Amino acid sequence: MPRVHILLGSKSDLSVGNKARKILSDFAVEHKMEVASAHRTPDHLKNLVKASDAEVFIAIAGLSAALPGTIAAHTTRPVIGVPVSGKVNLDAILSMVQMPPGIPVAAVGLDRGENAALLAIEILALKDPQLRRSLEEHRDQLREWVLEDSKTLGE
Amino acid sequence: MPRVHILLGSKSDLSVGNKARKILSDFAVEHKMEVASAHRTPDHLKNLVKASDAEVFIAIAGLSAALPGTIAAHTTRPVIGVPVSGKVNLDAILSMVQMPPGIPVAAVGLDRGENAALLAIEILALKDPQLRRSLEEHRDQLREWVLEDSKTLGE
Amino acid sequence: MPRVHILLGSKSDLSVGNKARKILSDFAVEHKMEVASAHRTPDHLKNLVKASDAEVFIAIAGLSAALPGTIAAHTTRPVIGVPVSGKVNLDAILSMVQMPPGIPVAAVGLDRGENAALLAIEILALKDPQLRRSLEEHRDQLREWVLEDSKTLGE
Amino acid sequence: MPRVHILLGSKSDLSVGNKARKILSDFAVEHKMEVASAHRTPDHLKNLVKASDAEVFIAIAGLSAALPGTIAAHTTRPVIGVPVSGKVNLDAILSMVQMPPGIPVAAVGLDRGENAALLAIEILALKDPQLRRSLEEHRDQLREWVLEDSKTLGE
Amino acid sequence: MPRVHILLGSKSDLSVGNKARKILSDFAVEHKMEVASAHRTPDHLKNLVKASDAEVFIAIAGLSAALPGTIAAHTTRPVIGVPVSGKVNLDAILSMVQMPPGIPVAAVGLDRGENAALLAIEILALKDPQLRRSLEEHRDQLREWVLEDSKTLGE
Amino acid sequence: MPRVHILLGSKSDLSVGNKARKILSDFAVEHKMEVASAHRTPDHLKNLVKASDAEVFIAIAGLSAALPGTIAAHTTRPVIGVPVSGKVNLDAILSMVQMPPGIPVAAVGLDRGENAALLAIEILALKDPQLRRSLEEHRDQLREWVLEDSKTLGE
Amino acid sequence: MPRVHILLGSKSDLSVGNKARKILSDFAVEHKMEVASAHRTPDHLKNLVKASDAEVFIAIAGLSAALPGTIAAHTTRPVIGVPVSGKVNLDAILSMVQMPPGIPVAAVGLDRGENAALLAIEILALKDPQLRRSLEEHRDQLREWVLEDSKTLGE
Amino acid sequence: MPRVHILLGSKSDLSVGNKARKILSDFAVEHKMEVASAHRTPDHLKNLVKASDAEVFIAIAGLSAALPGTIAAHTTRPVIGVPVSGKVNLDAILSMVQMPPGIPVAAVGLDRGENAALLAIEILALKDPQLRRSLEEHRDQLREWVLEDSKTLGE
Repeated sequence: MPRVHILLGSKSDLSVGNKARKILSDFAVEHKMEVASAHRTPDHLKNLVKASDAEVFIAIAGLSAALPGTIAAHTTRPVIGVPVSGKVNLDAILSMVQMPPGIPVAAVGLDRGENAALLAIEILALKDPQLRRSLEEHRDQLREWVLEDSKTLGE
Repeated sequence: MPRVHILLGSKSDLSVGNKARKILSDFAVEHKMEVASAHRTPDHLKNLVKASDAEVFIAIAGLSAALPGTIAAHTTRPVIGVPVSGKVNLDAILSMVQMPPGIPVAAVGLDRGENAALLAIEILALKDPQLRRSLEEHRDQLREWVLEDSKTLGE
Repeated sequence: MPRVHILLGSKSDLSVGNKARKILSDFAVEHKMEVASAHRTPDHLKNLVKASDAEVFIAIAGLSAALPGTIAAHTTRPVIGVPVSGKVNLDAILSMVQMPPGIPVAAVGLDRGENAALLAIEILALKDPQLRRSLEEHRDQLREWVLEDSKTLGE
Repeated sequence: MPRVHILLGSKSDLSVGNKARKILSDFAVEHKMEVASAHRTPDHLKNLVKASDAEVFIAIAGLSAALPGTIAAHTTRPVIGVPVSGKVNLDAILSMVQMPPGIPVAAVGLDRGENAALLAIEILALKDPQLRRSLEEHRDQLREWVLEDSKTLGE
Repeated sequence: MPRVHILLGSKSDLSVGNKARKILSDFAVEHKMEVASAHRTPDHLKNLVKASDAEVFIAIAGLSAALPGTIAAHTTRPVIGVPVSGKVNLDAILSMVQMPPGIPVAAVGLDRGENAALLAIEILALKDPQLRRSLEEHRDQLREWVLEDSKTLGE
Repeated sequence: MPRVHILLGSKSDLSVGNKARKILSDFAVEHKMEVASAHRTPDHLKNLVKASDAEVFIAIAGLSAALPGTIAAHTTRPVIGVPVSGKVNLDAILSMVQMPPGIPVAAVGLDRGENAALLAIEILALKDPQLRRSLEEHRDQLREWVLEDSKTLGE
Repeated sequence: MPRVHILLGSKSDLSVGNKARKILSDFAVEHKMEVASAHRTPDHLKNLVKASDAEVFIAIAGLSAALPGTIAAHTTRPVIGVPVSGKVNLDAILSMVQMPPGIPVAAVGLDRGENAALLAIEILALKDPQLRRSLEEHRDQLREWVLEDSKTLGE
Repeated sequence: MPRVHILLGSKSDLSVGNKARKILSDFAVEHKMEVASAHRTPDHLKNLVKASDAEVFIAIAGLSAALPGTIAAHTTRPVIGVPVSGKVNLDAILSMVQMPPGIPVAAVGLDRGENAALLAIEILALKDPQLRRSLEEHRDQLREWVLEDSKTLGE
């Protein structure tokens, strides 16, 4: 049973979705990814959300990017939004960030599928010490990479 | 039976809605106005749209402004979006304009409730010669006002 | 006799115009497409608009993008504006969206020729049940595509 | 023991913090609020974060708004960022949203302290059925308000 | 016979127009000011431009601000555009600046009616030594004011 | 003796400068083009401006784009500014447009060297009937091109 | 002999200048403040810069904000730029930040006269242990204020 | 012992860092460059800053770009920030420029590593006449290049 449900607004958002999927797999967090559009398949999207057992949703979309807000309208579980880059960029960022009072969306950065996954894991880790340890190790890994990068700058 | 259905994302958008209502009343076009939120009342909104006999929808909202796009997702009748001004402004404008392929929204200017109503009337007038004449008279009126304004600039 | 009249501000906007033309042809809606510039051929543009029997205009232009507004100044039929992408993008979007009170333009998204055509068809379908059915089928088709895309994401 | 730890970048962000505090009190979620600056009290901020037993952090700040990112650098618990409005607005929004890969922040809308609190509660509710029910009731309440607002629009 | 023709897109732009008028009066340059809208009175605007004996046009408008571009479409005399401030500001600035190739507009700053007038005078002064001297004196005056301002800063 | 003096802020702006030069050559208007930087060669720039017999200056620059404003500070002849595109674009546009009261710059569009030249010619044509006729012919030419483009769109 | 020379582009920037003056006085750093415009008094500005014995310049200006860049063109001493808020804000920020290669300006935040002064003091403190200690004390003070603010938030 | 300490937020910022390194080497100013992230290695970054003997820091980062602000939080020595270009650009620029009162950062232009180095040298040159002379020579060199570029524009 997937704990994280990734929804793409369009198949063209796949590369960003794959960043999320990669992190969730690395952390052995069960997840699934589907395409569902707030504008082209609103009923299907609602049904997916209502039927989903996932604890956290990740919604990935560009342009007017109503996907995470529409998911949030149908659930009180946490919804993470990932704006996808395009010709304007501020469109997707602002559409996701500027939600009205009462219906929160957790926006991460442009094309930051990996950060959406990590945020989902941070949420799941609140009651899962093993996942917490994996997050700490991941941070150690990030730190190591920075230190190594630093050594190889040359002079 | 209302021919134009005005939906406000929030009661705070009332002043923009009233601009639309004023024009529709002036043109004797039957209409009704309700509050319905894409994020707080998604099912109610869908039901309103599905049950509506209106020929044209006008959706007025600020911030991430998903209202017109959500209405458009539930109907193939024309949906006109009016972005409402706030602290950012580009948020509502871009959320309404940058709709994905397949689901059009007709965006008018920031707080331009009157233009949304006029656009709705232009659409209805395509098969209604009387309404067409009223539009022409309204244009004449606008022209008169400009000419009069010009005369009163003083020196 | 064309029901939709597409006007390009410049031949360089052709690819966006072709998106509109493709949709109109798919829906068997008679249309024609011409180049006419608000700035370089203002009189020719006015004459085209005045002589046109079209029910809806689609104006496609970039930069300061005065084309749809200028058409709207000469007709009370609905005018749909499509901003064309360039080095700034906000220029064409804002020029089309921010029309003054009294003269509406229906703006769709950047380079969204297909949505302009669909919006035109939605308008024409108000009195044309066959066109309405075609729109519904098109929506069904969009929905099918999303569902199929979802199935082919792989794991 | 507070479950949500609210940190303000400056006392001038208090009104946004109070929106969060109000919601958390309404939901009977224990919380505390302090001022701590990423730039003026970096060590104190780190100590607060390291010593905190909170499950979720809410960081409220304007301008270059490094507060949530700095908290996130010191914990793997979820950090929610609330950009505070000022003369530019895009500064705080983009500073919070555009976090680098590896260190997520969950950004909500400009001045949206209430949404930050609701998002925190959604996270805590994942293992707390009572809190889940309260969220559902809150949504019902929001829905009621919209319906009531709709009735009082007058004609 | 006016040498500079000031056109306002709307009477609400009067305060910016008055800044231009003040400078032109100070320099004893004959001018006249009228309201004429590119969107509401396109034919009247064209007639005004065609009938005008002015050597330079100043067009003052906000929002999508098509006025200077439309004037420029009807004349090869220099057209100076003054964007007027509003809720967005970038709309009028970009609409005036981003003219297509072939039809120039000379844009000055937001609400800078005085600079439009000075630019018009600089153009007229090319063949008018007296006007040139007045411009030099005006510059001297500006310089004096700066020096005086500097003296009164106090400590 | 050159009537138009083109100054580039950097040799990298040459392609925009060449657009201006092409138009001026086509109209047989004497001109010269040099590189001179407001920031790297302020004294040389001042000397060039003071020594120049040109009637109009065209200043082409990107980034913070102080070139036209600095030229305008040293002359009361008309200065046309052409912002050059780069990674931000709004930087050069706003730097040129937003001049303070008293010192006008005539800004044209991003990379619009040809429009700067046409504006310069419009200014020179005020007292030169032959140049006026050439401008009218150029407009006729533009119109012809639009009409021809329109014919070759195919169906 | 002043160590820091503050220049205002206009007397209207005085309140921002006073923030800088206040800090410099608190740190007992000799300074002086004058008005000098890059556009209205270019020669006077150059003379001031050339004659100045100051070690650091602070240039405060709004709009196209060429002041710090022009100062930097005439000296190799450090120049700190403070953009002043207005109707656009991005104009002054980008004009100051986006300097071309070779001529640096040190930009601080919008209206941040106090930060300009502190940056100047940080520079002067490199060879002045007493000033260094004062800076450390100032930081201690800032820290105290944050801690005190935190205590008075109430519950 | 390095006088300038360059810190990159990520190894991907290396090309901008190399521009700084090149200038510092040309001026024979001792320096060192390392990678250290405000978000991924906050403690390491603090330790580097506290242990550093450098007189000036240069911090190079993109996206939310907290690096220079975080360094400034740990030192009272001057910190120069270089925003790195990406998909948004305004994110890094505004994050660096809009520092809160009390903790200054000296921001230079997007990707302007060379200007950061020159600004650092200007600061060091305040007590180093040899370095001052090198700066003057560098300016002479820049001037020569402009003059040469001007000669090779051809006609």
